[in-house]
Amino acid sequence: MRSPANNAQLALLLEVAGTPKPGNVDRHRDHPDLHFDHFLAGAVGSLSGLRRAESGAPVGEAFEAAVEGMSDQRGGNTQFGCLLLLVPLVRTAATGDLTRERARETCEATTVADAADFYRAFEHVDVAVDDPPEGMDALDVRRGADAVPALEERGLTLYDVMGRSEGDGNADEWTDGFPRVFREAERMLDDAGLASERGARAFLRLLAEREDGFVRTTSGPEAAREARERAAAALDGAEDPEDLAEEFVERGINPGTTADLTCAALFVALERGLDV
Amino acid sequence: MRSPANNAQLALLLEVAGTPKPGNVDRHRDHPDLHFDHFLAGAVGSLSGLRRAESGAPVGEAFEAAVEGMSDQRGGNTQFGCLLLLVPLVRTAATGDLTRERARETCEATTVADAADFYRAFEHVDVAVDDPPEGMDALDVRRGADAVPALEERGLTLYDVMGRSEGDGNADEWTDGFPRVFREAERMLDDAGLASERGARAFLRLLAEREDGFVRTTSGPEAAREARERAAAALDGAEDPEDLAEEFVERGINPGTTADLTCAALFVALERGLDV
Repeated sequence: MRSPANNAQLALLLEVAGTPKPGNVDRHRDHPDLHFDHFLAGAVGSLSGLRRAESGAPVGEAFEAAVEGMSDQRGGNTQFGCLLLLVPLVRTAATGDLTRERARETCEATTVADAADFYRAFEHVDVAVDDPPEGMDALDVRRGADAVPALEERGLTLYDVMGRSEGDGNADEWTDGFPRVFREAERMLDDAGLASERGARAFLRLLAEREDGFVRTTSGPEAAREARERAAAALDGAEDPEDLAEEFVERGINPGTTADLTCAALFVALERGLDV
Repeated sequence: MRSPANNAQLALLLEVAGTPKPGNVDRHRDHPDLHFDHFLAGAVGSLSGLRRAESGAPVGEAFEAAVEGMSDQRGGNTQFGCLLLLVPLVRTAATGDLTRERARETCEATTVADAADFYRAFEHVDVAVDDPPEGMDALDVRRGADAVPALEERGLTLYDVMGRSEGDGNADEWTDGFPRVFREAERMLDDAGLASERGARAFLRLLAEREDGFVRTTSGPEAAREARERAAAALDGAEDPEDLAEEFVERGINPGTTADLTCAALFVALERGLDV
């Protein structure tokens, strides 16, 4: 019987193993400087932070610890976004039923100290993010701990910070009880086959449904639109997802936000009895 | 900075990810009822036993806990042999220098209680083993806990039990300070490339050097001889290791003992600074 932290670690591993996930590192593909091995080490290193979340540590503290552990490999940012979703979900699962309502409460209950730890987590690893909105320079996450005084002055909790990142796929989940994550977890449970295969299919559904924020940030809005449309075509059988995976890796189109959601959905599905 | 238990978990993951490892489940191949996902779950589940070894629990107790956790997936025996090698190595690393001499001392210091826990571990999962030697029926590992009275009556420690399994690749390592494991760890450190790739090359060297006990047990002595000879040919460039991997998986020739040694060598290499 796996604990929530162990299921979260397994979700990190099953997520990266699922293939094809067009544009991602997966069981069959690597990026030039980011390899499957780095994701394995990231999952190993993340566990101690995930265990802190399970033991009732504050969300921000557990997240920072998970990111620090994840970063103990040479690939850079492997699972920052996954952990941002997993940590409140693990904490929720460890204290009672893993429901959307309780997950939302976990996020709403975060404090300014959680926000400060979230900012500190950016010091452990380079994360690709957009420029902050007009007038928000003081709260640019890339400032790391230097942004903490501004956070404290304005009394912003981690939930508030996420609320100001409207339009980011992960932040939208965070502030609304993880609607897409829970929906995909249910679809995975209704699906057939191995867990990693169910994850790969969920990835394609999620990408076909909404433009990926990480693609928008790293490859631009055109690429984000194209990735969504072509995932939809792959889902309809009009494109071969294996070919799409080759092409997107070749072109550096990496739907990282969609991978984060897939990982979180795998976690919820495992907690709800998905067999491995 | 990964602890010994974390490095052991990472070694389990890097081992199964390495490809091609002719005949094994690896990053690119599954067996009919044994899939990459099962190895991921096995590595997740093993950790709590590995942590016990790190905290100073007796070798047998830690091993049984690791096997129990490993078994929490549908594939059956994924990493029993790996854990048999890893547990004393983790315990050795956690208390001082990880040397052959100290590893041998860890094994020599095992007790009858360790042997009893080793036998109990066989109750968690089906392990393919040979019939016991003449007159040793009472100590057939397949008896599990039922063999414990016979063990106690004869006062056999786990080290003694391993000593009576002469000719088994893992037992020979166990009773002699892990000579092949430490040698391959050094070769891995001298090699270049990603950790999982170094593991796959070590696998081929180990298989080319000595007949695999698991192949002998499950596919017979002819297959064991052939696997060794063809691995040697692959190492010399006379065979394509990818083709060999396809063929061995097809024919069910699975060099599991060689995979165990590869995993243990990865662990020693990680402890000695192999980068991931």
